[in-house]
Amino acid sequence: MPPDMPTHTTSSKPAIVLLSGGLDSTTALAIAQSQGYTCHTLAFDYGQRHRHELDACAQIASSMRAASHRIFPINIGPFGGSALTDTREIPKDRDESAMTNIPITYVPARNLIFLSIALAYAETIGSTDLFIGVNAIDYSGYPDCRPAFIASFIHTANLATKLGTDGHKVEIHTPLMNMTKAQIIQKGTELGVDYSMTHSCYDPSPAGGACGRCDSCILRRSGFKQAGIDDPTNYA
Amino acid sequence: MPPDMPTHTTSSKPAIVLLSGGLDSTTALAIAQSQGYTCHTLAFDYGQRHRHELDACAQIASSMRAASHRIFPINIGPFGGSALTDTREIPKDRDESAMTNIPITYVPARNLIFLSIALAYAETIGSTDLFIGVNAIDYSGYPDCRPAFIASFIHTANLATKLGTDGHKVEIHTPLMNMTKAQIIQKGTELGVDYSMTHSCYDPSPAGGACGRCDSCILRRSGFKQAGIDDPTNYA
Repeated sequence: MPPDMPTHTTSSKPAIVLLSGGLDSTTALAIAQSQGYTCHTLAFDYGQRHRHELDACAQIASSMRAASHRIFPINIGPFGGSALTDTREIPKDRDESAMTNIPITYVPARNLIFLSIALAYAETIGSTDLFIGVNAIDYSGYPDCRPAFIASFIHTANLATKLGTDGHKVEIHTPLMNMTKAQIIQKGTELGVDYSMTHSCYDPSPAGGACGRCDSCILRRSGFKQAGIDDPTNYA
Repeated sequence: MPPDMPTHTTSSKPAIVLLSGGLDSTTALAIAQSQGYTCHTLAFDYGQRHRHELDACAQIASSMRAASHRIFPINIGPFGGSALTDTREIPKDRDESAMTNIPITYVPARNLIFLSIALAYAETIGSTDLFIGVNAIDYSGYPDCRPAFIASFIHTANLATKLGTDGHKVEIHTPLMNMTKAQIIQKGTELGVDYSMTHSCYDPSPAGGACGRCDSCILRRSGFKQAGIDDPTNYA
């Protein structure tokens, strides 16, 4: 079934789930579904260097029976500023303790832009609930993953929109905010997530194999190890 | 000269000016320039029903010698929800006093999305200053034009970005916030703005003539009249 065909037609509360194809957002989707939300997944084609994460998103949305799946094209790549969208070398083999500074893989204002677009989408389908898999613990130093940013965004969102002015209240759900990577993997595993579908690597091989050495791979590997769960990732 | 070629190479402070092609954003550009900023104009191709406002933006940026001009494509049209991006009838001949409710020309979260993208752009060129021509008085009932929204966005922007975490402070300048349409036109006229280049109409003729009857035309006409300045608009 194409991933953008509705598969759930329940009358439960609709939610938009931001999907990146990685293990965090996939777990956030599983949690939203476990809370009874009808989940509309939203992925962004933002000029990233490879398509593997968008392929992963489509597979995850289809396999987990999202109510709909949408890929929103927004080419922030030409603004430059990030190793994820330009040709700079992705850092490799960094120690986890060195990941607290903002790395060159930071994409300017990315979560702010993505949440703003998700909010517009939510408003047009009459949803007040957004899920995003940001995390304050293993967050690689990105400023737009912090609780203070999310809290401020919720306030802004309610002032920015018709929804927020006609008695509704927009809510941004961040179920992973205070979980370690290991706890996220444990939670998703309990909920039946198949992590072999998820893609975390910043610098995969042309066939999609994970490098195992970028910040994202290092956090993922370490998470599976700490969780005591077999890592199904295909490391190239 | 192509509008995206730099024309100013001064060392003054860079600013991003959001340009819609209308009289408000054009006046905001003139004010930013009068304050000594090197202005990089940013327009959005967001699936609007006509191209006249993008043509106006390019002409304004070129004529007013913006340091650069960029059109950012972001197709929020398919989300629907606004008469500006779908096929519904644009309201005509409304009384100004009826323009306080949110009209069907409201585009969900538009200013939030535009400011978020402008912020990413600012960050990549090392600018901390954004100008937007929002207005709390003749604002047609759009929630994302209010001072409370802008204040909240500034707070969010400083939490969302690297800029905001390394000692800089992002500022959103709203020089028109407390001006009437007549005062805006007077100010722009003092600064030498040629309003014949600007395009305000929501529903222009195919050749670009203004309808004279949509909310935007009504506010514009009334502004010129109150300012006692000849309206150079080509009403179809």
